[in-house]
Amino acid sequence: MAVNLVTPNPADLKPVAGVRLGVAEAGIRKANRRDLTVIELAAGSRAAGVFTRNRFCAAPVQVCKAHLASSAIRALVINTGVANAGTGEPGLANAQATCAALAQQMGLRTEQVLPFSTGVILEPLPVDRLVAGLPKAIANLRADGWFDAAHAIMTTDTLAKAVSKQVQIGGKTVTLTGMSKGAGMIRPNMATMLGFLACDAAVSQALLEGLAREAADLSFNSITVDGDTSTNDSFIVIATGAAGNAEITDAASADYKTLRDAVVEVSVALAQAIVRDGEGATKFMTIAVEGGKDRDECRKVGYAVAHSPLVKTAFFASDPNLGRILAAIGYAGIDDLDVSKLRVWLGNPDETVLVAELGGRAASYVEEAGSRIMKHAELTVRIDLGRGDAAATVWTCDFSYDYVKINADYRS
Amino acid sequence: MAVNLVTPNPADLKPVAGVRLGVAEAGIRKANRRDLTVIELAAGSRAAGVFTRNRFCAAPVQVCKAHLASSAIRALVINTGVANAGTGEPGLANAQATCAALAQQMGLRTEQVLPFSTGVILEPLPVDRLVAGLPKAIANLRADGWFDAAHAIMTTDTLAKAVSKQVQIGGKTVTLTGMSKGAGMIRPNMATMLGFLACDAAVSQALLEGLAREAADLSFNSITVDGDTSTNDSFIVIATGAAGNAEITDAASADYKTLRDAVVEVSVALAQAIVRDGEGATKFMTIAVEGGKDRDECRKVGYAVAHSPLVKTAFFASDPNLGRILAAIGYAGIDDLDVSKLRVWLGNPDETVLVAELGGRAASYVEEAGSRIMKHAELTVRIDLGRGDAAATVWTCDFSYDYVKINADYRS
Repeated sequence: MAVNLVTPNPADLKPVAGVRLGVAEAGIRKANRRDLTVIELAAGSRAAGVFTRNRFCAAPVQVCKAHLASSAIRALVINTGVANAGTGEPGLANAQATCAALAQQMGLRTEQVLPFSTGVILEPLPVDRLVAGLPKAIANLRADGWFDAAHAIMTTDTLAKAVSKQVQIGGKTVTLTGMSKGAGMIRPNMATMLGFLACDAAVSQALLEGLAREAADLSFNSITVDGDTSTNDSFIVIATGAAGNAEITDAASADYKTLRDAVVEVSVALAQAIVRDGEGATKFMTIAVEGGKDRDECRKVGYAVAHSPLVKTAFFASDPNLGRILAAIGYAGIDDLDVSKLRVWLGNPDETVLVAELGGRAASYVEEAGSRIMKHAELTVRIDLGRGDAAATVWTCDFSYDYVKINADYRS
Repeated sequence: MAVNLVTPNPADLKPVAGVRLGVAEAGIRKANRRDLTVIELAAGSRAAGVFTRNRFCAAPVQVCKAHLASSAIRALVINTGVANAGTGEPGLANAQATCAALAQQMGLRTEQVLPFSTGVILEPLPVDRLVAGLPKAIANLRADGWFDAAHAIMTTDTLAKAVSKQVQIGGKTVTLTGMSKGAGMIRPNMATMLGFLACDAAVSQALLEGLAREAADLSFNSITVDGDTSTNDSFIVIATGAAGNAEITDAASADYKTLRDAVVEVSVALAQAIVRDGEGATKFMTIAVEGGKDRDECRKVGYAVAHSPLVKTAFFASDPNLGRILAAIGYAGIDDLDVSKLRVWLGNPDETVLVAELGGRAASYVEEAGSRIMKHAELTVRIDLGRGDAAATVWTCDFSYDYVKINADYRS
C-alpha cells in the first residue's frame, strides 16, 4: 500500500523536445509484460549520470560509466526482469552486446548507448530475447511515451512514478519530465532504483554533470527504505537543448538557478515516490536534521534514525516511542555530541510538538499529543543538534508486517 | 522462540568464592516480580567494565565509569523496569542515591558500589521503592544466588542466560560464572544488554581491564539483533582472588592464557545466548569473515551482512538468496574491494557449500544445496575477502514477523 501516491495522469506528463520513448514485451523473465524500454535522444543532447557505490555494481552500470566518459549519448535501453548484476565477465559482454545491437539498429556507435537492467541478481541476462525485442521498441518510439515507459521500467513497484514541470528560461518554455522505479534500495531480489530525468534546456556538459550530482544528493541519495544499497542504482539527467534557450554556462546565472531548482524539485518528487511506494510502507517519514557542524553529520543522524528498525516499527504502530529516536541519535557516530543541547520535535502537517530537550523528555510534552500526531500518515521528526548551522533531510518509510512478508515470501 | 537455548540447570551454576548474590521484589515498575539484585564482592576483589558508546548513555553507566576509576568495588546493584536513561540531571542524582543507600546498609563508601538499570527509557527511576527493597536483597545474599539473579535481571528475555566454567590455574581450581540479559540491542523500550562475569582468580587490575576489553570485543561487541545500540549496555568482569592462585601479572604467562581463554569462552556463550533469545529469532547466524586487510574491515563486512533486513528476512524464509548477501558485502564500505577475488560459503553443522566466486554465483553451486542447508536453525555465512590475513566473526539472528510484532505491539 503506497502512502499518498497515485498513478500519474498521462496528460500531466509533458513530452520533452528531442526525446522519444518506446516500449516492448521481450519476454525477458516473464511473458506478456512490457519489460523493454528504448529512449532516443536527438543529436546534440547531453547526459550525465550518478551511480551506485556498491562494489558489486552491475555490468550495465560499468558500461554506462565508460560510455558516458567517452561519447555523446544518443540512446538508452532499459530492461526489467534480470539485473545483470553478480554476473562477472559474461554479464559485461551481455551489456555490451545489448548496446551494440541497439546502436546497429539505430545507426549509432555502440558507445552512444547507455544500458540499464533491473530485476533478479545473479541470473544471466537473456540477451537474445532482449535484442529480438528491440525492433518493436524502436518502432514504438513516441514523444508522449513517458507514461508507458514509467510502467515498463517497474518491477515490483505497485505504482508508476513520473512527473513533469515547466519553467521559463531565457524567454523559452523549458520542459522537464522524469520517471523512477524502485520500492526499496533493493526489492526482493529485484535490484535497483532507476531514475531518468530529461529536459530540453541547453546547458553545458560541465554544469549538467554538477547538477546531476547535486540533484542526486538532495533526492535519491537522501532516501532509504531498508538501508540496503542496490547493485544497479542509476540516475541519469538529460538535456536535449531543443528548447532553444541560449546555452547556460554560468552556475551563478539566474537561468541556471531556475533550471537547477526545477531539476531538484522533479528529482525529489521522483525519489519521494520510491519511499511512498516502499515495501509495506504505511507512513512517509521526513527526518529533518539541523544545527549540525556539517552536512555529513546531519546525514549520519538522519540515516541512523531512518534505518533504526525500532524507530520504524514504532512508527508503524503509531507509537510515539521517543526513547528509540533518542537512542538512534545517540549511536549515530557523533562522538562529541552534547545531548543536553539536543532538541527533538515530532510533527505532522497539522501540528508539531517539542518532545525532547535537556537530555530527556521535554517538560511540556504529553503523550496524548505524541499519539495524536503519530496517527497521521505523513510525519516529520525534526532534530536540532545545537552545535552548528548545517542541515540535511532524509526521507523514509515505516517497517511493517508486510515488509517481512514481501521479503520473506516472494519466492514461495 | 529462542534458538537452541534452554534455561540453565541451577546445579551447573557454580558459586564463585568471594561473590554472593541476593534478589528482591521491589515493585519498581510492576508488582510481584523480582526486579532488584545485589551482588556483594569480598574485600580485595577487582572489577573492570566496558560500556555503551551511545551518547545518550544512561545515568548508571556514567556513575559506573566514575566509581570504577576511583575505588575498590565491593557491591553491584541492578534494577529492572526502568533504565534511568534519557533522564538528565535528576537521573544522575537517582543513580548516586541508589549507591549511597546500598553503601550505607552494607558499611561501604558510595564509590564502592556500581549501579545498573534496565527497562523503560525516559521514565524517572522510582528510587524510594528501589531503596526500600535493598534490605530484603541484602538479607537474601547467597553464594549460590546466580540462578535467581539471572532471572531477576531479565526484562523481556524469554529465558535466563548464565553459564559456569572451571579451569586449573597455578594448581588451584578457578571458577568462572557469568550471566547476561538482553534480547535485542534494545528491547521494545526495554533498554539494554547487561553482562556480569565473576571469577575467583587472582589477577592484576591492569590485566583484568585489558581482559574485559578483549572479551567484550570478541563476544558482546560481536553480536547484533537489530543494529540498535542501547543506552545502558554494560559488561563487568570481576576477579575476587579467593581461589588462592598466585596473582597473575604477566600477559604472556600460561596462567593468563588459561584465564583469558576461559573468560572469552564464557563471554561468548553469554553473548550468543542474547542472540539466540533475539526478538522473534528462528535462526542463529554466524557471519565469519576472513582474508581481510585488518579486523576492522572484516567487522564492517560482517555487520553489513548481519544488519541487512533483506539478508535477515531471507534467512527467516530459509531462502538461499545469495544476491542479497553479495549486495551487502558490496556496500559494506570497502572502497577498493575486488569482488572477483571474493568467495562466499553457506553452511550448517552438517555441510558447507561454496556459493559465490569470481564476482558471481559459483559454477558448482546448485540451489537445491542452498535450500537444504538453509533449513537448519544454525547457519554460517563464511566470507573470504581474498586480500589479507585478518578475520572477524559476528553473530546475529534472522528477522521475522514476530520481530515486527514484538516491537510494534508491546505497548498496546
